[in-house]
Amino acid sequence: MAATVTPWEVKGKIDYNKLIKNFGLKPLSKLKLPKIFMDHYLFRRNLVFAHRDFDKILDAIKNKKEFAMMTGLMPSGKFHFGHKMVADQVIFYQKLGAKIYLNVADIEAYNSRSTNLKELHKVAIEEYLTNYVALGLDLNKCDFYFQSKRSIDGNKSNVYYSLASMLGRHVTANEFKSIYGAVDPGKMAAALLQAADMLHPQLYPFSKKAIPVVVPVGADQDPHLRLARDLAKRCKLYKFSTLSSTNHKFMFGLKGAKMSSSDPSSYIALTDDPKDAAKKIKKYAFSGGKATLEEHRKKGGNPDIDVSFQMLKFGMETDDEKLQQIYDNYKSGKLLSGEMKQILVEKIVTFLTEHQKKRTKAKIHVTKFLKQNGL
Amino acid sequence: MAATVTPWEVKGKIDYNKLIKNFGLKPLSKLKLPKIFMDHYLFRRNLVFAHRDFDKILDAIKNKKEFAMMTGLMPSGKFHFGHKMVADQVIFYQKLGAKIYLNVADIEAYNSRSTNLKELHKVAIEEYLTNYVALGLDLNKCDFYFQSKRSIDGNKSNVYYSLASMLGRHVTANEFKSIYGAVDPGKMAAALLQAADMLHPQLYPFSKKAIPVVVPVGADQDPHLRLARDLAKRCKLYKFSTLSSTNHKFMFGLKGAKMSSSDPSSYIALTDDPKDAAKKIKKYAFSGGKATLEEHRKKGGNPDIDVSFQMLKFGMETDDEKLQQIYDNYKSGKLLSGEMKQILVEKIVTFLTEHQKKRTKAKIHVTKFLKQNGL
Repeated sequence: MAATVTPWEVKGKIDYNKLIKNFGLKPLSKLKLPKIFMDHYLFRRNLVFAHRDFDKILDAIKNKKEFAMMTGLMPSGKFHFGHKMVADQVIFYQKLGAKIYLNVADIEAYNSRSTNLKELHKVAIEEYLTNYVALGLDLNKCDFYFQSKRSIDGNKSNVYYSLASMLGRHVTANEFKSIYGAVDPGKMAAALLQAADMLHPQLYPFSKKAIPVVVPVGADQDPHLRLARDLAKRCKLYKFSTLSSTNHKFMFGLKGAKMSSSDPSSYIALTDDPKDAAKKIKKYAFSGGKATLEEHRKKGGNPDIDVSFQMLKFGMETDDEKLQQIYDNYKSGKLLSGEMKQILVEKIVTFLTEHQKKRTKAKIHVTKFLKQNGL
Repeated sequence: MAATVTPWEVKGKIDYNKLIKNFGLKPLSKLKLPKIFMDHYLFRRNLVFAHRDFDKILDAIKNKKEFAMMTGLMPSGKFHFGHKMVADQVIFYQKLGAKIYLNVADIEAYNSRSTNLKELHKVAIEEYLTNYVALGLDLNKCDFYFQSKRSIDGNKSNVYYSLASMLGRHVTANEFKSIYGAVDPGKMAAALLQAADMLHPQLYPFSKKAIPVVVPVGADQDPHLRLARDLAKRCKLYKFSTLSSTNHKFMFGLKGAKMSSSDPSSYIALTDDPKDAAKKIKKYAFSGGKATLEEHRKKGGNPDIDVSFQMLKFGMETDDEKLQQIYDNYKSGKLLSGEMKQILVEKIVTFLTEHQKKRTKAKIHVTKFLKQNGL
């Protein structure tokens, strides 16, 4: 099946080199990344595989210049391991000294999903923000906001919103159609806010001057980046530094297909009971093994499509040597599918148990933070 | 010629009764207006001729309940007598105790006309705001804001902007198309802001509860009102009091056709030199008189299409008896077109001379007000 990668659909076997070429991205492997990047599993394993203008970010890091990282979250469903991959990057950039902009796309969610804003905010806080903090995000060094409630201290004009509305001048309905599949006013308003999310960190009072901003996205989200970059160029009202982005690979859903928030057996949530998570893996995790034990021993399994192995690779096994050994053993047939699942189960159970302890502390932080910030 | 009345085109001879029927408006004459309305030339002369739910406003006035009036201004070109008709209503409602929301549609102007925001702001202040104040607007009892800089005291969320974006959910591209002629992202963003302009005076922190709001518009702008009323109903997030509106008749341009900001001979600006204004009237004002003196004396002129008479009716002659006499004398042929023009010239010269003195004082007020409010 030919692969489809658009903001509204990802399917098929993805050839990432082809995707780099088709989208006009640059392979990250061509950049000389500092050691600290190589210490991070996502970069070392080429799971963050491509970029646009990431040189600007490396330059800022090298020369200790101001830079920012921006990401948005859609407050729907559970926070799962796909979300964790983004959170891991956010926390990494925070440690590197980036100013973090973390936005809850509640207006986008309102305009495209649920009109229950209270429920959207509850999910954003209890699922997303709390997990971010438990994973290591320092809220005090982070500009966290809701699209619907972007406020600034004091009686200042809110450049975030006016930017969103004014960017509308610089885009055509046809461009929207090609990126979003359809033109409807609600989606358009949300898309303009999304562009403002990415661009406003460069504007006063958020910043005193144009600064490099990196937006880490799944490769399917690249069209949004492209639009925001184009809009920044066309808008003469402000001088923007061109947006940088990185693209990460897609994480498989538990059953091999896409994760879907309406199907809890398609993902493991970071709030899943460790026992339930273990059961899900045993019952649902798509296996790269052969049909019979005999055949598996003889021909070996395929770790590249085995979801348990993929989850180990996407962070649950941080030791590269061990990971390689698991890979080799599976491929040779020495490691069975059930054994592979058991390796993952142990890692996941340990991780979830630890993580959920951290969540208890995180909840206190989050509650305090929201209160202090009138959110 | 059949009349056309849409937000983007007004032409032909307008039958206001037909317009009331076609648009589903209510004639204002059917309402029992308090004496104070009858003291105002616009209401007494039926120049404000129709409404939607204006009963709510009359009820608020009668029972001394809170209500608001909202209007927007497009900062382009000169402030002329067409604009004065709106300003007169704003000032009237302010005296009646309405909270006044006066909005500069700078984002709408940016998205549809000029991207020079500084120039737009200069025009808004020097032309529009200064003339409003010279005509009698009390800035201290007025919430004046730019769409691009809607700020609120303190670190509060800005419901104005989030409302604009979220209203997008409740409208379709086809509805936009039928009202605005075309769907483009810039116009759409501006239209959503316009709906928020009309609706946000009912929301916290602008108001503690839903209150009646009246929006005085030219009849061509009724579709915007209809949309805002529909959006308010569809949006379940907030409970709005249904918007009220009044519709005023169209003021003729100097040459009989539409006023056009790109053609200074089509209007008289409130900053025109009185001598130049007199010359414009003599040279350009469309006359309802006959081709020859003889014919005019015999058959009489037509005051209903005579622009000079219309300008007297639209406020330059406030005495109804005198106005009626001028009307009768012109119709009978006793009053000649040149004489009609001379009556207007004297009124206009007096008015402009007085007004421009007031502008000098108004400028000081405006400068102080803008500084105090960080605008």
